[in-house]
Amino acid sequence: MNDRVREILSWYASENPGVRTNLARMLNHGRLGGTGKMVILPVDQGFEHGPARSFAPNPAGYDPRYHFQLAIEAGCNAYAAPLGFLEAGVSDYCGDIPLILKCNNHDLLNDERDPISAVTSGVSDALRLGCVAVGFTIYPGSAERTEMYQQLRELAEEAKAVGLAVVVWSYPRGSSLSKEGETAVDVVAYAAQIAAQLGADIIKTKLPGAKVELAEAQKVYQKYEIPISTLAERVHHVVQSSFDGRRIVIFSGGAAAEDEKFFEEVRAIRDGGGFGSIVGRNSFQRKKPDALKFLDTIMGIYEGSIQ
Amino acid sequence: MNDRVREILSWYASENPGVRTNLARMLNHGRLGGTGKMVILPVDQGFEHGPARSFAPNPAGYDPRYHFQLAIEAGCNAYAAPLGFLEAGVSDYCGDIPLILKCNNHDLLNDERDPISAVTSGVSDALRLGCVAVGFTIYPGSAERTEMYQQLRELAEEAKAVGLAVVVWSYPRGSSLSKEGETAVDVVAYAAQIAAQLGADIIKTKLPGAKVELAEAQKVYQKYEIPISTLAERVHHVVQSSFDGRRIVIFSGGAAAEDEKFFEEVRAIRDGGGFGSIVGRNSFQRKKPDALKFLDTIMGIYEGSIQ
Amino acid sequence: MNDRVREILSWYASENPGVRTNLARMLNHGRLGGTGKMVILPVDQGFEHGPARSFAPNPAGYDPRYHFQLAIEAGCNAYAAPLGFLEAGVSDYCGDIPLILKCNNHDLLNDERDPISAVTSGVSDALRLGCVAVGFTIYPGSAERTEMYQQLRELAEEAKAVGLAVVVWSYPRGSSLSKEGETAVDVVAYAAQIAAQLGADIIKTKLPGAKVELAEAQKVYQKYEIPISTLAERVHHVVQSSFDGRRIVIFSGGAAAEDEKFFEEVRAIRDGGGFGSIVGRNSFQRKKPDALKFLDTIMGIYEGSIQ
Amino acid sequence: MNDRVREILSWYASENPGVRTNLARMLNHGRLGGTGKMVILPVDQGFEHGPARSFAPNPAGYDPRYHFQLAIEAGCNAYAAPLGFLEAGVSDYCGDIPLILKCNNHDLLNDERDPISAVTSGVSDALRLGCVAVGFTIYPGSAERTEMYQQLRELAEEAKAVGLAVVVWSYPRGSSLSKEGETAVDVVAYAAQIAAQLGADIIKTKLPGAKVELAEAQKVYQKYEIPISTLAERVHHVVQSSFDGRRIVIFSGGAAAEDEKFFEEVRAIRDGGGFGSIVGRNSFQRKKPDALKFLDTIMGIYEGSIQ
Amino acid sequence: MNDRVREILSWYASENPGVRTNLARMLNHGRLGGTGKMVILPVDQGFEHGPARSFAPNPAGYDPRYHFQLAIEAGCNAYAAPLGFLEAGVSDYCGDIPLILKCNNHDLLNDERDPISAVTSGVSDALRLGCVAVGFTIYPGSAERTEMYQQLRELAEEAKAVGLAVVVWSYPRGSSLSKEGETAVDVVAYAAQIAAQLGADIIKTKLPGAKVELAEAQKVYQKYEIPISTLAERVHHVVQSSFDGRRIVIFSGGAAAEDEKFFEEVRAIRDGGGFGSIVGRNSFQRKKPDALKFLDTIMGIYEGSIQ
Repeated sequence: MNDRVREILSWYASENPGVRTNLARMLNHGRLGGTGKMVILPVDQGFEHGPARSFAPNPAGYDPRYHFQLAIEAGCNAYAAPLGFLEAGVSDYCGDIPLILKCNNHDLLNDERDPISAVTSGVSDALRLGCVAVGFTIYPGSAERTEMYQQLRELAEEAKAVGLAVVVWSYPRGSSLSKEGETAVDVVAYAAQIAAQLGADIIKTKLPGAKVELAEAQKVYQKYEIPISTLAERVHHVVQSSFDGRRIVIFSGGAAAEDEKFFEEVRAIRDGGGFGSIVGRNSFQRKKPDALKFLDTIMGIYEGSIQ
Repeated sequence: MNDRVREILSWYASENPGVRTNLARMLNHGRLGGTGKMVILPVDQGFEHGPARSFAPNPAGYDPRYHFQLAIEAGCNAYAAPLGFLEAGVSDYCGDIPLILKCNNHDLLNDERDPISAVTSGVSDALRLGCVAVGFTIYPGSAERTEMYQQLRELAEEAKAVGLAVVVWSYPRGSSLSKEGETAVDVVAYAAQIAAQLGADIIKTKLPGAKVELAEAQKVYQKYEIPISTLAERVHHVVQSSFDGRRIVIFSGGAAAEDEKFFEEVRAIRDGGGFGSIVGRNSFQRKKPDALKFLDTIMGIYEGSIQ
Repeated sequence: MNDRVREILSWYASENPGVRTNLARMLNHGRLGGTGKMVILPVDQGFEHGPARSFAPNPAGYDPRYHFQLAIEAGCNAYAAPLGFLEAGVSDYCGDIPLILKCNNHDLLNDERDPISAVTSGVSDALRLGCVAVGFTIYPGSAERTEMYQQLRELAEEAKAVGLAVVVWSYPRGSSLSKEGETAVDVVAYAAQIAAQLGADIIKTKLPGAKVELAEAQKVYQKYEIPISTLAERVHHVVQSSFDGRRIVIFSGGAAAEDEKFFEEVRAIRDGGGFGSIVGRNSFQRKKPDALKFLDTIMGIYEGSIQ
Repeated sequence: MNDRVREILSWYASENPGVRTNLARMLNHGRLGGTGKMVILPVDQGFEHGPARSFAPNPAGYDPRYHFQLAIEAGCNAYAAPLGFLEAGVSDYCGDIPLILKCNNHDLLNDERDPISAVTSGVSDALRLGCVAVGFTIYPGSAERTEMYQQLRELAEEAKAVGLAVVVWSYPRGSSLSKEGETAVDVVAYAAQIAAQLGADIIKTKLPGAKVELAEAQKVYQKYEIPISTLAERVHHVVQSSFDGRRIVIFSGGAAAEDEKFFEEVRAIRDGGGFGSIVGRNSFQRKKPDALKFLDTIMGIYEGSIQ
Repeated sequence: MNDRVREILSWYASENPGVRTNLARMLNHGRLGGTGKMVILPVDQGFEHGPARSFAPNPAGYDPRYHFQLAIEAGCNAYAAPLGFLEAGVSDYCGDIPLILKCNNHDLLNDERDPISAVTSGVSDALRLGCVAVGFTIYPGSAERTEMYQQLRELAEEAKAVGLAVVVWSYPRGSSLSKEGETAVDVVAYAAQIAAQLGADIIKTKLPGAKVELAEAQKVYQKYEIPISTLAERVHHVVQSSFDGRRIVIFSGGAAAEDEKFFEEVRAIRDGGGFGSIVGRNSFQRKKPDALKFLDTIMGIYEGSIQ
């Protein structure tokens, strides 16, 4: 491994060599291999939003094999999906790309104010399917979060013991938060801290907005003049809140926006010290050539070949 | 096995040979053996609707042995029933027909708006009774669905580990859906996707109606002009939503209707790329000769000998 | 074993020889041994109704040994009681009579509209006390029935694996039923069907009344003119609903009534094809000589020596 | 062992020799050893009522060693306390007095109408601390009683398997009972019966009052003219309700009253056939010399040396 | 070990040598080693209050390594933190300071009136990270306390069996208490008693205020004239309530106040017989040199070198 990867792995010195090996597999894979940056393709929208909303824009995506191909051809660091999508595609691509098994999922046929995902797969599935990591979503702010944290703790304990890395989607949601508060900078930073304290090896969270949600937090942001006016500053704050940058934090962009705006966000992640992006709908909902071009630009920005 | 069965099994390459063997047993059994089409006889109505409502129309059906005989004589691919019905009949028919143990059940003495079935049997029962698969019902749309998904996940993990296939009845129900929404095409497609993502080997769902239930989904159906005006098109959409046709999806017809209408539906399933039918009340609630004739026509349509 | 017992056991061909042996022990024991009929003494009223209401009418019954003596002297097929009553009496009567350990119980200090019994003992207790079977009560119609069915499923799986037979008290109760509906013929038949589907070897239920509770069921009873006007016809319907008579179904009489009326009910059970009676309060709440005479008449009716 | 102890142990013939040995240890220990009577010192008030309310009247009681000394010097049959109190004192007194580990506890910082105690220790603790028995409180009448009965069933099964006796505090409480009903004679008798049916080796309950709480029970008490006018008669009725006296039943006195009144109650317990007293606050809340004198009188009454 | 440590360990004679060894490691470590006093650095505020509120005042604290360094340089007896913070820092400091793994945590994104923390790590984590103890928070007064007590009981049983000491944060909170009541002297003393009865080796609680919350307790404080007018007296009462001083009890100071006021509190803890302080925000939220000076004064007071 090169020095940057060696440095990143040094932050995980308390993990066993199995976990660090699987982190290295992701960090060393694909076009960004060895840069310390990551772009991951996640495709759980079939479960989370329904099939038509996910795949009608690019019907090739109904086929579970498509996303393996896209992630491999684009040179992503890893591909993440729920049990069924991995089961139905993995055999043709064994060893071609690091896989993350998304172990809990939520559907929108019920849309509770305080959501909790169903645990839909686990460590034994990840092992039999050749994955490098398990993924798990928590919703800090949900009245159900105690249960979710405990489910994560059980999964993580079991996963790490067999050398699987633990990737946590930490997405603030729930009745205690305003809608805008779900992406408030203090809330996103808090959600990243919680994931890190729960033992996450890699943290995925939303891009933080300029709002500060919690009154007690607001006093602190003002008193200490924490810089949060630009997106890069807010990214920096979230990374700092993830053990002063000693945990890999990557960001999701949300629904499809104008490409140039998306690239601006990627630059902010890069400038703020973020470790990369998780790009789902923005990539698999366009035709493959377009998606490859889109991902190529993102990776170029992270790599430094594109400004 | 012939080429069609070989092709279908290729979609299940991540399953162990035990599971694939049991899928092959169903695909190769009975009159439709080798065609890639399936007609399954399910008899759980005694539990789900009560004995008189189920068997009074044809009292021979009170006897658990009757349904084995019917399924065998009709040349069905498999027979599915709850624990008691299998226990009370299987010894006379060991090995005569592939069996699916229906592992959860719901009765109508209480009829909640957000139902959840009781887990009434499991993998050890399926093994001691010589079954090829376990069956499990989920109700996407029910407030209890998180619990059901997790029960299914536990059952499926245990079943697949010992080579049993997993058949999921995915029937949308619950307070979040309108009555008509339970068979809305977007909802049924979503329910099929969820079952597939949960690891179902075979998915059973309802025939989709023309309604689109969810506002966010409606936008997509309109924008992308997804064809859903004919039943065959809607069947096609559900099959596409089940991993682009790479999972076996079969359809239930519901309460007894006019025979010719039923055959029309079978033709639509066939034309839409569906894999077959699950025919319960429409077969066992008529005298056996009539039932055999009725099933003969259905199989003929799937086989291609009847148009 | 004689031909009738051999015939009955043939219905249980999927049970292991251990379970069939214990069924045979009950069928072959006592005055009705070999007839295929059963009279069982159950004494759980101390828990269910309280000690004074149960035993003040015949204070000898406060002593747990009394009921063993009564069941043995009367020639009952089996004696059923909760853990404490068996523990406190069994040592003096090891092997003298088949024992059924009643594994769940409910008290009336709280009387919920949707009751669930507490699980108060289990398979290891049944084995160490020399029992032939475990007993378990379910209340179809209770909002808690899903939990009860699942508790029964766990108990039954464990019991059958070690050769214990499973006796299910299936007593409709709960907020979804009218008071009279708890003994409505459709409801009782449904409750018997549920118990059979859950794997019960022996089903105990209440004598069915003439009412039909459920609207959907009522249509069927009328359309198919199911005969339910006499008690014998209703018994026949419940037996038919228990796998066409291929499961042992016995009936409880409820609170003490006039003796002659009770005997009339026994004749109806006999004429309707029922397998016998469970006689609790009507026997142990009178002095032993009276109780023996009373039970003698009942057995005589089943045996055919009394009309 | 002497004849009386042998007689008492004969009631427990279904328990294994380990359990009977530990019952004998209590019956043979202390000043009442061999009489078949028991006086037990329980000190769980620190948890149940708080430290100051428990120990301020006699501050020596803050020290966990004090209660061992008191029980030993007074010649009690056993000492019962929660985990912490036993852990913090036992090492100085190993083998000096039979110990009962009180395995669940309830505090008054919350005082629910339907209480349930927390399970705070278990069989492995009892074994490592050298106890002869586990103790467990149930609150018949509480809406939570099903959970408590099931917790007791699990504890008792585990305890008896390793030879520990099971002591049940059966104290009626809960929203279904009036305040006076918590000590109503029918309710206390019912609570004793429930404990016995759940497998209790020793039952502790409250002294029964003259009230009859339940309407259905009242009819029986009147019809059969059950004598309950004197305390001795009511004690007799509770003992009778505990398997006709074939289970050890002891009584608690409650809050400190005038001594002579307390002795009157002891005489009533003795005359009604009760097996002894559990004396907590009335003994440890006075100076040790006074407490020893107080307990000396109580034991004298049971022994027969004092009238 | 010296005589004072030997004396303290004698109170834990029922713990196995593994637990006593780990208690000795804490008592013998750092500047206060051997004095019987302890100052512990806890850093769980990142989870409990959020990252900015915790670390913005001294941004060095975002880095998990900082707190190890601070605790080591200050000569604390131990450092306590949640899973993530220990995982991310421990490898550089193996064996340099005794570690306590804080096994449950609560965040303020939801702030319930009846809080319960999530179980976020456990014994296997503590062992693999080289800890000497597990830490666990209970909230006596919360409607959820039964669940918390049971979680603690399971953790403690498992921890002690492998030689880990058990440190309990017993912080009264919940809807049954007034705001001021959370630090009322009777409530804090009760909370300490509960922790001790649950088997805590070390108890951490809040400094008790002058209020008495519970009416029944108030009667006792007045009747027995329990001295609670000075903080030292109240500390003494809490220590007495912790098994008459035979359990280690240390106190937390809460939010940053004027230093001199804090030192006054430390003197009161010392004078009241408390065993030390847990100093979180007051130390890590100032620059390291200041923090070291602050902690130096505190330790000087406990040591006796500063008055």
